[in-house]
Amino acid sequence: MILSSQYIDLIQEELKQLHIPDSPDNLYAPISYFLNLKGKKIRPILTLLSAELFNGNINHAKHAALAVEIFHNFTLIHDDIMDEAPLRRGKPTVHEKWNTNIAILSGDVLMIKAYEQLALCPPSALPGLISLFNRTAIEVCEGQQMDMDFETRDQVAHDEYIQMIKLKTSVLLGCALEMGAILCNTSLKNRTEIYQFGVNIGIAFQIQDDILDLYGTGEKVGKQVGGDILANKNTLLSIFAETNANEVQLSELKKLKFEKNAALKISRTKSIFDELEVKSKCNQVMQDYYQKALHHFDAIQTENKNTALLDLTDALMKRDF
Amino acid sequence: MILSSQYIDLIQEELKQLHIPDSPDNLYAPISYFLNLKGKKIRPILTLLSAELFNGNINHAKHAALAVEIFHNFTLIHDDIMDEAPLRRGKPTVHEKWNTNIAILSGDVLMIKAYEQLALCPPSALPGLISLFNRTAIEVCEGQQMDMDFETRDQVAHDEYIQMIKLKTSVLLGCALEMGAILCNTSLKNRTEIYQFGVNIGIAFQIQDDILDLYGTGEKVGKQVGGDILANKNTLLSIFAETNANEVQLSELKKLKFEKNAALKISRTKSIFDELEVKSKCNQVMQDYYQKALHHFDAIQTENKNTALLDLTDALMKRDF
Repeated sequence: MILSSQYIDLIQEELKQLHIPDSPDNLYAPISYFLNLKGKKIRPILTLLSAELFNGNINHAKHAALAVEIFHNFTLIHDDIMDEAPLRRGKPTVHEKWNTNIAILSGDVLMIKAYEQLALCPPSALPGLISLFNRTAIEVCEGQQMDMDFETRDQVAHDEYIQMIKLKTSVLLGCALEMGAILCNTSLKNRTEIYQFGVNIGIAFQIQDDILDLYGTGEKVGKQVGGDILANKNTLLSIFAETNANEVQLSELKKLKFEKNAALKISRTKSIFDELEVKSKCNQVMQDYYQKALHHFDAIQTENKNTALLDLTDALMKRDF
Repeated sequence: MILSSQYIDLIQEELKQLHIPDSPDNLYAPISYFLNLKGKKIRPILTLLSAELFNGNINHAKHAALAVEIFHNFTLIHDDIMDEAPLRRGKPTVHEKWNTNIAILSGDVLMIKAYEQLALCPPSALPGLISLFNRTAIEVCEGQQMDMDFETRDQVAHDEYIQMIKLKTSVLLGCALEMGAILCNTSLKNRTEIYQFGVNIGIAFQIQDDILDLYGTGEKVGKQVGGDILANKNTLLSIFAETNANEVQLSELKKLKFEKNAALKISRTKSIFDELEVKSKCNQVMQDYYQKALHHFDAIQTENKNTALLDLTDALMKRDF
């Protein structure tokens, strides 16, 4: 992570340089507010590191990186409305601080602002960039819809779940990386490999999120351990548990969904998960996707192949919060 | 209007040909539903007629026309949420038929689908098209925010109001027309003239809407006559009335905002509007913008200048519903 702190600063600085007007205040104040929330800026950094990997000029890739970051912020503002989330990055969400209408509209403007950044990319790369970006943007919306649909369902299959996290979060990582490759005009094979690297890394990260929600040391970041269990959320943990449980365990898991005592609900559910070795099974799936990602990385053919991207993803895979 | 019925069919047919997937159903069913609602399709027709005016190939302009129409539909879905509108084109709005979250997300996808159509335009025209489209899209959002802001204000000035309708509705007409011009690679002067033609026509249309809301024969289309007065909406009529009213009239107008009897509220407000000759004053402003539009049209320099565009706008200016 230390490696990329210079890039975080670069992105943060570029976001500050965006021309955000003052008026109408109710439209633009939320946008300035949201863009200035601290974040890891993983997506735009992936674009920059990808351009670096393919011997490109970082400044060349700046606008594409910003497009991905701004688009990501748009999805967060709208997702927060849909999820009725009160906080984002420790601060009130836009619909909480202002209202839902303002959050809808300022989200819309952010999406257009993402396309403004795309339009600033070199014209020769534009058709390829826009085509990838559009496809990805639609997939992200499909993933969000699947996620909402899953909330109202009792059962979700393993493959459906992986497909949902792939669309909702992973394809944007693949897109961020492939945009760097497109800008450097590298081979189609390299484009595909780096895209697949991103998608598989993304799936591994998301599975890690599921695991850490229950098995992480949440105190570090003040997060509620077992939050997904409390919210009766379908995760890879719960899907493994339900698939492998015997009748007694299954009936107990179902009963626990209605348990009012939060601590009891989490500890009893966790016990059953432990009996079923859910954690190690999920870890295995996560590792499989991580390995798959690394194979795609290995298949990339480029001069002076540096390890900055691998160092970043490796650091992210090692987090325990 | 008869002139352009072939174009309505063309656009309707093209919308049907769009690849709208089946799944996730909650995301795509609202999109198919909304795109199939009957509408006048004025914006995409403007793009086609503009391309025709500049001796372009209609098929060449098809994707740009669809981009404008799809973008317009996106704004309608999101505006309907914000305005809590129950009906659109006589049918339930998306947030009513499904729910708000689905309306937000399917609107988002429609916006991306507009950019998908843009991306299908000839690469040489793409930078110009995207730049105009982005600027316009943001202006439309600004106009919607101003409109929402005006709802909570007692007073709105004439110029602010014109600025709001210009941004919310007129710039998209200008954009639709200029896109046709860009695709035909005409002069910058022609681009500006046709854009200004569209913007001024748009302002005239919107003022006409305000007038017809009270002075039109609403029964024809089953619309509530005086709906704007009932909703205490700021319109050019109310702005003229409040600017010109004497103290007695002004105090009566203010009292009428709290009148519960709908028929009485409309008839008494209308009486004061009539005393102040509000209708003819608004008509005058509308005519001024219409004339301004025609001057811009006259300034366009092109071979075989046909009148299809003028015939369309003329027909629209003559509607009395």
